[in-house]
Amino acid sequence: MSSDCIFCQIVAGDAPSAPIAETESTFAFMDIQPGSDGHLLVVPKRHSTDLRDVPAEDLSAVALESQRIAKHAFDAWGADGVNLLNCCGAEAWQTVFHFHMHVIPRYRDKDKDRLHLPFDPGVRGNPELIGTLAASMRESLGEE
Amino acid sequence: MSSDCIFCQIVAGDAPSAPIAETESTFAFMDIQPGSDGHLLVVPKRHSTDLRDVPAEDLSAVALESQRIAKHAFDAWGADGVNLLNCCGAEAWQTVFHFHMHVIPRYRDKDKDRLHLPFDPGVRGNPELIGTLAASMRESLGEE
Repeated sequence: MSSDCIFCQIVAGDAPSAPIAETESTFAFMDIQPGSDGHLLVVPKRHSTDLRDVPAEDLSAVALESQRIAKHAFDAWGADGVNLLNCCGAEAWQTVFHFHMHVIPRYRDKDKDRLHLPFDPGVRGNPELIGTLAASMRESLGEE
Repeated sequence: MSSDCIFCQIVAGDAPSAPIAETESTFAFMDIQPGSDGHLLVVPKRHSTDLRDVPAEDLSAVALESQRIAKHAFDAWGADGVNLLNCCGAEAWQTVFHFHMHVIPRYRDKDKDRLHLPFDPGVRGNPELIGTLAASMRESLGEE
């Protein structure tokens, strides 16, 4: 536990939250600045800063718990879809530096859903640049 | 394998892609409509429609492979951050119905990064609504 981490404080019960569910290694609670009705966070109880340092077992546990809760969002809340979002680093919109997965229910009813697409998916990338980037990543990963 | 699924065809080598990495159960390749330079996808080789039906072992494998590649985006590509994004259902921007995780490198250099925040994180939600939604989810999950 990191004593100045608000999510560690929430997990420990030392800071208030609207809790959703708890497993041996994860804790889920409502986001207080929701992008849609029901926007919640799943965190490992054990402190990690972000995607780079979260241990494999905590990452798996968070992914599986996010899936479990996401499935219930359809029935419990009448969601029409769900986004999972992880933000790693300030440049990727991370604001609390305890690894967390956003589970964001989506609705056709836009009174419940204030999200807009973060990028234009209809724009084709430059194939040459994509090929160059793929090659440098394969090299970095040690892939053939 | 679903024969009319473009991602199954990519995994099988029957459709072209810029591949990144392959494990026993996952395949990673570049997104051809990237939100940022290096935007890629990690999919389970085995077909699932979306987050609701992907088996636990495939979901874990995709999460861990996404993490492995995300770490390399910092060194290989000079990324300043990374987002992981899953879209479950058309209402959540899913367009290919084979479960996939977006790995989206982020850059301070906005020539490389065309994303904008999908919601305003500074807007506080209604605490009463948040409490009501938390209660209905706990009930749905069978949590105390």
